[in-house]
Amino acid sequence: MSDSPTPLDPATRATLEGISTATITTLLLKKGLRQVWIRGSRPLHGGSPRVAGRAFTLRFIPAREDLASPAAWASPRSTRAAVEAMPEGCIAVADAAGGVTDAGIFGDILCARMAQRRVAGLITDGVIRDINGVRDTGLRVWCQGTAAPSSATGMIFVNWQEPVGCGGVAIYPGDVIVADDDGAVVIPEALLPEVLAAGPGQEKLEAWIMEQVRLGHPLPGLYPANEATLARFRAETGG
Amino acid sequence: MSDSPTPLDPATRATLEGISTATITTLLLKKGLRQVWIRGSRPLHGGSPRVAGRAFTLRFIPAREDLASPAAWASPRSTRAAVEAMPEGCIAVADAAGGVTDAGIFGDILCARMAQRRVAGLITDGVIRDINGVRDTGLRVWCQGTAAPSSATGMIFVNWQEPVGCGGVAIYPGDVIVADDDGAVVIPEALLPEVLAAGPGQEKLEAWIMEQVRLGHPLPGLYPANEATLARFRAETGG
Amino acid sequence: MSDSPTPLDPATRATLEGISTATITTLLLKKGLRQVWIRGSRPLHGGSPRVAGRAFTLRFIPAREDLASPAAWASPRSTRAAVEAMPEGCIAVADAAGGVTDAGIFGDILCARMAQRRVAGLITDGVIRDINGVRDTGLRVWCQGTAAPSSATGMIFVNWQEPVGCGGVAIYPGDVIVADDDGAVVIPEALLPEVLAAGPGQEKLEAWIMEQVRLGHPLPGLYPANEATLARFRAETGG
Amino acid sequence: MSDSPTPLDPATRATLEGISTATITTLLLKKGLRQVWIRGSRPLHGGSPRVAGRAFTLRFIPAREDLASPAAWASPRSTRAAVEAMPEGCIAVADAAGGVTDAGIFGDILCARMAQRRVAGLITDGVIRDINGVRDTGLRVWCQGTAAPSSATGMIFVNWQEPVGCGGVAIYPGDVIVADDDGAVVIPEALLPEVLAAGPGQEKLEAWIMEQVRLGHPLPGLYPANEATLARFRAETGG
Amino acid sequence: MSDSPTPLDPATRATLEGISTATITTLLLKKGLRQVWIRGSRPLHGGSPRVAGRAFTLRFIPAREDLASPAAWASPRSTRAAVEAMPEGCIAVADAAGGVTDAGIFGDILCARMAQRRVAGLITDGVIRDINGVRDTGLRVWCQGTAAPSSATGMIFVNWQEPVGCGGVAIYPGDVIVADDDGAVVIPEALLPEVLAAGPGQEKLEAWIMEQVRLGHPLPGLYPANEATLARFRAETGG
Amino acid sequence: MSDSPTPLDPATRATLEGISTATITTLLLKKGLRQVWIRGSRPLHGGSPRVAGRAFTLRFIPAREDLASPAAWASPRSTRAAVEAMPEGCIAVADAAGGVTDAGIFGDILCARMAQRRVAGLITDGVIRDINGVRDTGLRVWCQGTAAPSSATGMIFVNWQEPVGCGGVAIYPGDVIVADDDGAVVIPEALLPEVLAAGPGQEKLEAWIMEQVRLGHPLPGLYPANEATLARFRAETGG
Repeated sequence: MSDSPTPLDPATRATLEGISTATITTLLLKKGLRQVWIRGSRPLHGGSPRVAGRAFTLRFIPAREDLASPAAWASPRSTRAAVEAMPEGCIAVADAAGGVTDAGIFGDILCARMAQRRVAGLITDGVIRDINGVRDTGLRVWCQGTAAPSSATGMIFVNWQEPVGCGGVAIYPGDVIVADDDGAVVIPEALLPEVLAAGPGQEKLEAWIMEQVRLGHPLPGLYPANEATLARFRAETGG
Repeated sequence: MSDSPTPLDPATRATLEGISTATITTLLLKKGLRQVWIRGSRPLHGGSPRVAGRAFTLRFIPAREDLASPAAWASPRSTRAAVEAMPEGCIAVADAAGGVTDAGIFGDILCARMAQRRVAGLITDGVIRDINGVRDTGLRVWCQGTAAPSSATGMIFVNWQEPVGCGGVAIYPGDVIVADDDGAVVIPEALLPEVLAAGPGQEKLEAWIMEQVRLGHPLPGLYPANEATLARFRAETGG
Repeated sequence: MSDSPTPLDPATRATLEGISTATITTLLLKKGLRQVWIRGSRPLHGGSPRVAGRAFTLRFIPAREDLASPAAWASPRSTRAAVEAMPEGCIAVADAAGGVTDAGIFGDILCARMAQRRVAGLITDGVIRDINGVRDTGLRVWCQGTAAPSSATGMIFVNWQEPVGCGGVAIYPGDVIVADDDGAVVIPEALLPEVLAAGPGQEKLEAWIMEQVRLGHPLPGLYPANEATLARFRAETGG
Repeated sequence: MSDSPTPLDPATRATLEGISTATITTLLLKKGLRQVWIRGSRPLHGGSPRVAGRAFTLRFIPAREDLASPAAWASPRSTRAAVEAMPEGCIAVADAAGGVTDAGIFGDILCARMAQRRVAGLITDGVIRDINGVRDTGLRVWCQGTAAPSSATGMIFVNWQEPVGCGGVAIYPGDVIVADDDGAVVIPEALLPEVLAAGPGQEKLEAWIMEQVRLGHPLPGLYPANEATLARFRAETGG
Repeated sequence: MSDSPTPLDPATRATLEGISTATITTLLLKKGLRQVWIRGSRPLHGGSPRVAGRAFTLRFIPAREDLASPAAWASPRSTRAAVEAMPEGCIAVADAAGGVTDAGIFGDILCARMAQRRVAGLITDGVIRDINGVRDTGLRVWCQGTAAPSSATGMIFVNWQEPVGCGGVAIYPGDVIVADDDGAVVIPEALLPEVLAAGPGQEKLEAWIMEQVRLGHPLPGLYPANEATLARFRAETGG
Repeated sequence: MSDSPTPLDPATRATLEGISTATITTLLLKKGLRQVWIRGSRPLHGGSPRVAGRAFTLRFIPAREDLASPAAWASPRSTRAAVEAMPEGCIAVADAAGGVTDAGIFGDILCARMAQRRVAGLITDGVIRDINGVRDTGLRVWCQGTAAPSSATGMIFVNWQEPVGCGGVAIYPGDVIVADDDGAVVIPEALLPEVLAAGPGQEKLEAWIMEQVRLGHPLPGLYPANEATLARFRAETGG
């Protein structure tokens, strides 16, 4: 178990934060990947900036009454210890036992500690609790919603930095994650150069196409851009 | 395939925009219709005005990897061509392959083009992508939410102006659609005169009943209104 | 059928309104209760104050076309009569036939009457209709969302003040309900003293822990608080 | 609460046992009823004879740990007392708290007692336990399947002979129920004469149509039968 | 709309009926196809021989009370006309409005006619009715189960030989379908030569591997077969 | 990771195989455990004897196209290696990525190898493939059903002998599992003595109660047995 994946270097992070998750999924689809968007994980704070970082995974399984109790929170393999192991800039990705939505994986206190440790975000196919307190911590969260009960009501924490499923997507410790108002996506390491190379140009092209639409151009030939359109794009923008 | 259903005349449209979808479903229930409200289609922008128009349908089926790819977007039977076929004032109703929620049927560019073509709204049992960009286009949208992946990730576009199912409701090209903050409903052509005749009076009555409630009248006899209440309503309002 | 459970006395109500539903579920979990949070019941107005009161239950079953019609609204065993039987300060808890989400159990007129009768809140595993009108009444509502069709489209009202299931939780007439932005929970009468005794102290402790987190203290030992932490808490706060 | 609805007279029962549930739903659809087939209720023993009888209803709500326990089985308002109140020839219809499938409403002992009391059948949108023992009792059962845990694990029994929802259908005490290998349907009392009058003739006609199909007749005009076909049917069968 | 796709030639059909659907999905996965198995479509008669044929598609949308009625069965665009248009040896694939399971798409009479017209099978993500009668016709059926109500209760038939979704898979008229006790799969035309070429050898290899397992060989190296194993296979079988 | 938990000693195994899963869940409920029955795991062969053994866990996560392929089957951390690590008499419990039902976790070859290694059973919340071949191996299987596609179509195998969730239940390597026609349950080690002590007597009592029911005794006082009944039971059976 590697607790500290090498963080993204600042340039890579900045580039990724300039590419929308929509564009990333399109680039990955061209490489044959369809299972990269984490289902059921919506932003708690719409309209705030995109985040990118390496995945720090958390694994939960369903509760069993002899094992799941508040007492477990003090165990050395607890969510508390997991939070203390998170490196700055990582994105915590929590498998909520396959998407449990009637027990919150984290509440305000753990999220406050994550915010203070400069964790870049929390992504889960489950829910959080103490929603107002969590909002106040400033931690960026993507989840299915809110529930009052604690994780011990419906889940047992197993471990951190194991491969997990989250929202139907396989996430390995250290995978690159990008999240914005359209949700959260994973970029496999091997495809990261591709995304970094093609993403910014694609964003520039789409912004120019959007402008053409506003000027009244019809879609066929414009989007997706045919050769003539691409030539015009390059001529006008130098792109 | 009729690409251009006769649009609603302005008076009909104005009348419909004054009748809530709640009232329309009650009027249709009295005629035996229960399957008229499109499930899972929520307004992207709450609080904006009601819209009414004729349905322009779009049909998607689930993706198959040999057929669903970005390349398909340039086909003559593409969503792009469909958008160009939409008449002013229509309401696009998209069957997202039975309600696929992990691939967006449309993103900001197509919605921008629809807005520019003065399409009155987009209704789907699926989701959209590029949510912030879509909001900026001003197009009125009712959908299940947002996903980053493109339609090619999960769906194949088949055709426009075919009968479709959307949110468990049968929609035929040219059916009348009304949508507001309670969602979207279909009015079969044969029942449109009924709705136009009874709707405004019902709205007036309910507003008056609401006023009576605020004045402290109890519900029995008031709502639904018995004969005495109706007589009082007519006397007070001339309605 | 007792139509008028003794309301909560003001002191109890005030104490409960100072304990979060998250904290209440933790206290009840320590007593072995996991099924106390009403699934699928979200606040219509986020950010407003917590409410507490005794449950006034409403029971619906699925619609059958020979029985479910607008005509039924005038029956003596109607939702209208139920509203008139609600005592001030109660919280209406409606079993929407197991969670029907395509027909609204109540609309603006009934909610307005409830607000006027000083009902403290409405909680359902179903949905409401006339969402803007309902918002305007000021009634606090927890529900799954909105639908245009009336209850008669999908449900039959059976009776009030019977034991019901709501969001997977058993609710008996007179049970104590607390609801806030994390949702709604039930407190069995026998455990109410426990909650009233332990809740305020737990809230005070958690607020102090939150402060320690902001000061940079790591989680292990702090939360859950070990003996040393508790000693420090008591020393610093007199708590 | 009427514990003993008048049983079906033998002639009515015999006639109903000669009409398939498929035919009954078609007859009721012609009267505007669509919500009459109990979803998720499959025969435990395929291929055995059709049963008809009056509904004896049982109502469960979800479990809450302070109330649902084996101790409750000895209460006067228990499932045991309910079984003892069932009249000969009735069909028990159990609302399994909206379709709980991870706790069996009844096991072999209660089913054995029902069989001995000559209950005609048990229908539920939930499941049973002790499947082999239940099969041995000979009681006809329609359910969603099997689960090992007892009802107390997931449900609380509330009462018998109340209106219930079962598989999305409203069932009132005394409603007429018919069940066969296609499942179970309810016939409202007011429509019973209609079904008794039209059912046998419809069965005879369909049997004759089936024979025509075997002889090679194409479907159009044959099924549904047009006037010429009906004339031929009457001429050949005297029907 | 091509009502009569060229049927599979007898040799192709015979070869396909010798390749299990499990093996076909593995061959297609190697070509990047994952969405080829029709979810929720189980054999009505387990243990009978595999079938292969070209798809004859049927499309249904959800019911609307003004359109879905027994009267529609006599329309020229009815399921009856569709059955009469089915060529010998085809496999009917019915999109049950996205998988409606509370109304049967076909009953005994239509299935009897299909059997007589030598239709090779019926595959749907919905259900059938008159289950005993359907079994007696001998038609091979794959479906989700049984329901008493007719299609008019829950669906409207739209047309035949259009592209459809069935169980989450895109099916076009004329696509090759193979079905056995593991369910039904689609083979895109362009990949049919691949399947015909590789399938029989793969079946022969797997049968030999199964024999090795029975002889006590461990799995690693055996399955999937490494070079040494393949050499041994070829030496022993000449395959 | 302990690949070889101590197997159950023969006497324990024999005792457990004489206690029904229904009885075990009742005994565990008395100890406060409700989450012990594995949802969605039905016997592939009904009517065969009960099995008991220690859990050997398998963990899968959802597929990602860059990682899930037939090539992965040859990896050292493959399902093949897992099968070779299973000790005689264990019960394999596979978490099918939270219950994936459109890709089979195992087919006939792996099941044949498990049967040969004298694995006592396979339990999963997913499905198997090659259903006829699996039946022929004689391996006892509990699963949700069948699908043609291989595990690589929908899942990635992660590891064996980790804690997993299966059908909503937490299973740890070495937990005791018992499975019969009512499904599969887990017995935590600490409660095993309790079950072994109380189970056989409970079975004997229930068999005697069943006999009393056949003799015509009513349920109240008999089941659950009151003191008088217990005295009679002891007198008659010496139990």
